[in-house]
Amino acid sequence: MPFSRNIKIALAYDGSAFQGWQAQASGRTVQGVLEEALAKILGGAPRTIAAGRTDAGVHALGQVANVRTDSTIPAETLKRALNALLPEDVVVHAVMDVSAHFHARYLAKSKQYVYIIDASLERSPFLNRYALRVDYPLDIPAMRQAAGSFIGEHDFAAFMAVGSPVKSSVRTVTVSELVMKEGRLYYIIEGSGFLRHMVRNIIGTLLMVGRGGLAPEDISGIIESRDRSKAGPTAPPQGLYLVAVNYEE
Amino acid sequence: MPFSRNIKIALAYDGSAFQGWQAQASGRTVQGVLEEALAKILGGAPRTIAAGRTDAGVHALGQVANVRTDSTIPAETLKRALNALLPEDVVVHAVMDVSAHFHARYLAKSKQYVYIIDASLERSPFLNRYALRVDYPLDIPAMRQAAGSFIGEHDFAAFMAVGSPVKSSVRTVTVSELVMKEGRLYYIIEGSGFLRHMVRNIIGTLLMVGRGGLAPEDISGIIESRDRSKAGPTAPPQGLYLVAVNYEE
Repeated sequence: MPFSRNIKIALAYDGSAFQGWQAQASGRTVQGVLEEALAKILGGAPRTIAAGRTDAGVHALGQVANVRTDSTIPAETLKRALNALLPEDVVVHAVMDVSAHFHARYLAKSKQYVYIIDASLERSPFLNRYALRVDYPLDIPAMRQAAGSFIGEHDFAAFMAVGSPVKSSVRTVTVSELVMKEGRLYYIIEGSGFLRHMVRNIIGTLLMVGRGGLAPEDISGIIESRDRSKAGPTAPPQGLYLVAVNYEE
Repeated sequence: MPFSRNIKIALAYDGSAFQGWQAQASGRTVQGVLEEALAKILGGAPRTIAAGRTDAGVHALGQVANVRTDSTIPAETLKRALNALLPEDVVVHAVMDVSAHFHARYLAKSKQYVYIIDASLERSPFLNRYALRVDYPLDIPAMRQAAGSFIGEHDFAAFMAVGSPVKSSVRTVTVSELVMKEGRLYYIIEGSGFLRHMVRNIIGTLLMVGRGGLAPEDISGIIESRDRSKAGPTAPPQGLYLVAVNYEE
């Protein structure tokens, strides 16, 4: 018998102390602590579905999940109860009833990620878990030009973690830009969906461009090659933030 | 025989993973990791003196220390070597030769601290180690008025950790103000010197004013009482930052 309610949850978390989103046999995960709190409030063994299964160390400002339940607890009460039960590094921003067919992952129309690179003159001791530190000079105009090459519908196989079990590696990127502010580089990418490690592999490649190891003009050829070995290394997780997930209204 | 050089070191650290500044028999301390790095570079067993012996969990943007040595390593080389050896949560911003009589603590003319209170509508999961979270309404104008009462030369015994071994608890505060910015309260205090827990006890008292448990007019009487039990509780350490230490030029 299907559940009577489907509930959408918007949440933020500091990914530093999590082994990523997805519940595992061992290790602290966001899904794990969220489902543990939900079980206490809703009863049973609630299962959550997230828009993006973030990796260990990756942060979220606007993750979205959904959970089905028969509980009659009002959405606002559930939000307050969750925030009372969840650990300090997870915050629920919104809880609302949605239609039965809502699915946080399959129905996501687009997602936005930001990757932060600290390229300031002096390293900050406060950013170790929140940005990638770079202490070599970067050719920002070249990186900006390279970033533009990711826009459009492409087969991103060259930027996908090897062995990812996906039917198609074609994705559409609508925004791909670099913003420099107070010594920090913010790479903003938005698209229909993302392959495993796709943003971090793009960052690794953009950094190669920034150091002169690749020319901005090389990017299109790397995308076309569909060859993971042609693109740059996977940038570390701590600079990455899942910022927003958008759904058809 | 006295050392041939006296070296001033300006440093910043994230206090989250430290048992404070002062070296201890056990536990990770800023002085401990700094002296360990200095020993590798300078040889011997260098002893550092800090301007402010920050407590566990307290951060520093502009801590100052000095160390005496006979090493002939240039200051700039020492800075680079320190940053290469120090853990990620400590950064040395400047190293310079100073006169033999320089003493980071005794010669400090004034110090500035900032305490950050996160009073925004939505708690951030990223601020747990970097601000005090307050989710009750605060009377900011009353707190601002109360903050002004700390300015001047006063006997701050009511705001000193019980049992502090000091000759005098008279200190001069030159700046004591609250700034509200994007849902966060920044309390800025500057003065000739600070007693143990003084800033945190002032914050605990200002929060009592903010909740209506004390009137701004009560502050002067509390200072005059010299009675620790009259003032508010000690606010937690994670909101506190040693921002700057100034010396006679």
